[in-house]
Amino acid sequence: MKKETRWTIGVDLGGTKIDIALVDESGRVLIRRRLATRASEGPAAVEAKIIDTVRELQQTADSRPLGLGIGVAGQIDPVSGVVRYAPNLNWRDVPLQTGLSEALELPVIITNDVRAATWGEWFHGAGQGCDDLLCLFVGTGIGGGVVSGGQMLTGCSNTAGELGHITVDLHGPYCHCGNRGCLEALAGGWAIARNAREAVKADPAGGTLLLQKADGNPEGVTAKIVTQAAREGDHLALHLMDEAALALIAGAVGLVNAFNPCRLILGGGVIEGMPELVDRIGKGVHQRALAAAGAPLQILPSQLGNDAGVIGAAILAMRVLTGKDPE
Amino acid sequence: MKKETRWTIGVDLGGTKIDIALVDESGRVLIRRRLATRASEGPAAVEAKIIDTVRELQQTADSRPLGLGIGVAGQIDPVSGVVRYAPNLNWRDVPLQTGLSEALELPVIITNDVRAATWGEWFHGAGQGCDDLLCLFVGTGIGGGVVSGGQMLTGCSNTAGELGHITVDLHGPYCHCGNRGCLEALAGGWAIARNAREAVKADPAGGTLLLQKADGNPEGVTAKIVTQAAREGDHLALHLMDEAALALIAGAVGLVNAFNPCRLILGGGVIEGMPELVDRIGKGVHQRALAAAGAPLQILPSQLGNDAGVIGAAILAMRVLTGKDPE
Repeated sequence: MKKETRWTIGVDLGGTKIDIALVDESGRVLIRRRLATRASEGPAAVEAKIIDTVRELQQTADSRPLGLGIGVAGQIDPVSGVVRYAPNLNWRDVPLQTGLSEALELPVIITNDVRAATWGEWFHGAGQGCDDLLCLFVGTGIGGGVVSGGQMLTGCSNTAGELGHITVDLHGPYCHCGNRGCLEALAGGWAIARNAREAVKADPAGGTLLLQKADGNPEGVTAKIVTQAAREGDHLALHLMDEAALALIAGAVGLVNAFNPCRLILGGGVIEGMPELVDRIGKGVHQRALAAAGAPLQILPSQLGNDAGVIGAAILAMRVLTGKDPE
Repeated sequence: MKKETRWTIGVDLGGTKIDIALVDESGRVLIRRRLATRASEGPAAVEAKIIDTVRELQQTADSRPLGLGIGVAGQIDPVSGVVRYAPNLNWRDVPLQTGLSEALELPVIITNDVRAATWGEWFHGAGQGCDDLLCLFVGTGIGGGVVSGGQMLTGCSNTAGELGHITVDLHGPYCHCGNRGCLEALAGGWAIARNAREAVKADPAGGTLLLQKADGNPEGVTAKIVTQAAREGDHLALHLMDEAALALIAGAVGLVNAFNPCRLILGGGVIEGMPELVDRIGKGVHQRALAAAGAPLQILPSQLGNDAGVIGAAILAMRVLTGKDPE
């Protein structure tokens, strides 16, 4: 790395893994590490692990970073930078921004993990050059980020973009959030797995392939197994993915009509497990959205995949610390 | 009106009526006229009627207006100002902005009627002082406007805010837009009327009061009749309004989770016909929205009512022509 290269550190803190990378201002990953989160060890242990790894990576560089950006799977207080609530980490009110900043003696910018991924796709992925885009990440849960008129929407209390919790079936199944019929409760990985387990238990013969992939244990059927079986032509798995696709189309149509993005970018584990969903959703949305909203719309897969979060967090820090963005 | 008062002309062009007013920069209506649209006479006749009335109103003033703002019930091309498609007027590609501007020798700012109403509520109604708000107007159709981070969202092709066409029941009834299960297809005035007519035909005894208010003709039952009967305690009407309220709650929850507004402002004929809906929707949304999105949220009725569109169009013109807004 040349001495004059400007760079930041990106961190993507999720419930199961932590990605940490040095990223230059063109969005290129210079070096990276992946750690297991082990959230059960508590916030202090997770924070210490991030600090140790950042220090280790910094030693590979011959210049100082401008700062660190971190995306956390949880709600972030926009003023204090405190992680208010992170269900997958089982954290409440953790002052992560202050902790990291004091230990590392660096400015730290903190945001939600999905919003960080949207920053990544916007500046260095499928959203480059676009002022109106919507990212929908379909993983175990469903989340997203919205850029409108060249601004990342944050909302009144910094939670804008909870796109998994739009209601698409008001009589539908209950969601982890307590409401019913959320997009996530029909098409998130946990919902696909739940539906598959119920179907396999109700009809073990129809679920032969799914059961086989789960070593005979219905409770071992995951969304990943369902997408694999669907790609192999399994009838039940295809049906389950059809149901999820219909919900994703219904949700995406509503979002396109409400936000009128130029690009809808689809990512996350479920989409990566079954990339043909992008075309399927694209056709469905173009059929069903209002003509004026559908006309300019492109529907694209995520370009950065798993790197979107870590690159996005680093780039957000770069932009804030060089005065290009207020967040 | 004092000579130094700055003022603009506001026009709200709908399918049945046209409101025209002189509005000062504090949002006060100085003088107004209401005309029947008579869209069947064609765009030239409607345009001529607006021009004549504006000239007449201008004669009451002793100074020149800064310009004219007009909100049209249709899609507006953001560059050319052409009315691309206005279903309730049966217009396609009408160069209204140019026509009015040339005839009146005034700068003309054109926007969608619901967005104009959102400008009105934002600057002079229930949205004053708020940077993140969502207006949901429940009339014959359902439309809205979204302000996020202090910006009115316009979207990629100027159609952001089509909040009536979010899917809330993916197996639900067909909508005028061709999709199914749209919020409007469950809770818009036309849907309430359709459901009421079907119910009355299926069970004339249960529909006695509705039929009576419609002079015995099931096809004469309107949403206005349903809200009146519901307020009188009629069982069937209350049931119909319950169904509409559940759909409005489901839709509003999704919008609150996606946009995270500080205020949700409810207006339009259906809400005005049954003002208790505001509290009902408010309670439902606070029960069902994500805690972090619901916590800062206020749910309020429109303050300007029918005047929101005409005041909003005038104020938008004032802001654009004095350099306060780019639109």
